[in-house]
This record gives sequence, C-alpha cells and structure tokens, in this order.
Amino acid sequence: MAEFAERTSKALVESGTELAPKFDADGLMPAVATDHLTGEVLMLAYMNAEALKKTMELGEAVYWSRSRQEMWHKGATSGLVQKVHEIRIDCDQDAIWLRVEAVGGASCHTGFRSCFYRALPVGEAARDGYTLTFMEQEKAFDPEKVYGKK
Amino acid sequence: MAEFAERTSKALVESGTELAPKFDADGLMPAVATDHLTGEVLMLAYMNAEALKKTMELGEAVYWSRSRQEMWHKGATSGLVQKVHEIRIDCDQDAIWLRVEAVGGASCHTGFRSCFYRALPVGEAARDGYTLTFMEQEKAFDPEKVYGKK
Repeated sequence: MAEFAERTSKALVESGTELAPKFDADGLMPAVATDHLTGEVLMLAYMNAEALKKTMELGEAVYWSRSRQEMWHKGATSGLVQKVHEIRIDCDQDAIWLRVEAVGGASCHTGFRSCFYRALPVGEAARDGYTLTFMEQEKAFDPEKVYGKK
Repeated sequence: MAEFAERTSKALVESGTELAPKFDADGLMPAVATDHLTGEVLMLAYMNAEALKKTMELGEAVYWSRSRQEMWHKGATSGLVQKVHEIRIDCDQDAIWLRVEAVGGASCHTGFRSCFYRALPVGEAARDGYTLTFMEQEKAFDPEKVYGKK
C-alpha cells in the first residue's frame, strides 16, 4: 500500500493533490455514504487509515467498527456490500464522502434503506417538542433473516 | 426550548419517535449537509445540543466550531446561510443529516460549492499512489472578498 503525505502546510492540505488525511485522537475520521444515483445519505460511519486504504484499493466500503473495535468490511456478513463509485475528501482532509451502490438496496442494520429514516421538526413545528417522523415506511430486508436472531 | 428524551432502551432509540440524541465525549455529533435538490454533500461539521436545538427552531444550520470553540451560525459572517429544508437523524441517533439550500451557491470557506471538491483514486488507480483529482474547477465566490484577508 502507498503512504499518505505529511500535513506540512494548510495550502498543501486544502489546495494540493496529495492525500494527507487527518484522523482524530482515536485514529478515526467520519465517512458519509450516499446513494450514487439519488444522493440520499445512507449512513455515517468511521474509518481509520487502514479502512481508508482498503476502501480505495478494494472499491467497496470498509469502515472501522467503534462498537466492535474491528475492521468492518460492510456487507461481509449480510452480503449487502457498498460498491464505491467515487470517494471524496473535504477541504481540511478530515472527512470522507463515498458515493456508493448499496447491494440489496439497503444500508441500515434495521432493514431500512438509509439509517436516516426519521425526520426532526423544523421551525414552528419544533417549538412544542421534538417528535420524530418516520420517512421510510417499509423495510428493504428483514434483519432477523439476514443477521439471525440475537 | 424543549428537552431531549432519555436514552432508556435500544428499542426507543432506534424504533421510537422521541428525539434522544447521543453526543460524544466532547458533547458533539457529526452533521452532514447536502444540497436539497442535487444530493451533493456540501460539508461535514459538528453540533452540540444547543446547536441542534437552534438549527431545528431557526430553520438555518447552526454548528459548533471546534477550531474556534464557539457556536457557529453558518453564514452569519459571509451571508452564505444554509436554509434547512429537512433534518434527519440516524438509527442510533448519533449523527445528523441536513438537506439545505446553500444561499450564494457555496458552502466551503475556500469558495468551492462543496467542501468535498477533490476525489480519491479507486481500485487500480489506487495501487500506485493516492493522487487527488479536483472535481470542481471554478470557485463560487472569492474568499478574500467575502471574509477579507487574514
């Protein structure tokens, strides 16, 4: 595997063509995956240096699971891999955007297409309380069938 | 302002209609903003509890600036506010998705439309090194004119 560049200056990081990523104190950065066709945000997870390199080289999303503390090749268990069409990095190189094709049509462990299946109130609606609204009605798969009962 | 709900069970957090957000050790959660029409990811920033409540009630994106350690009503300086069309939260309620209309057509301090203006190599292209490719050619505004020289 190739190596990342050093973060020697703000100009290099923001205006250059060298990949000089910044990971946080835990060695992680957030990675947001969107559907490559619709732009829907599917999930937000985290990558360490190895996950980022594997995602680039494999062309499938590989994250670091904070809950399990292990590398997480998304879909390795469920078959619902995320084929990577494009990877972007932001101005200060501390966040990743993946444009993916979610095999099976779903990315959330709950069975919903997107992890972001609920909306918050905005404006007047938020004055009286913060009730969530479900934006997806049907699950794309049955989590018990895919993952088994736990 | 209303209060958030307690995170009393996984079922409530994942399947309920109560807003019970989880902030990290610094009191923050990541918030990704996308263009409400195109789905393009514009930026990724962070919110604390107050920023989340203000965003809901104001209908404009309010973040917490980690670099300045202060509330950050996006656009208060530049005029380039983000009008919030929809707010979503993810399954475990520790990440936010904002669908916004970026006034002035740009969200990045560099002048680009999106902070994610560079792409990483994928697959074969990543074997020899990690050169970034600029995906935006023209800036939507001149940062020196909007923010002044620093």
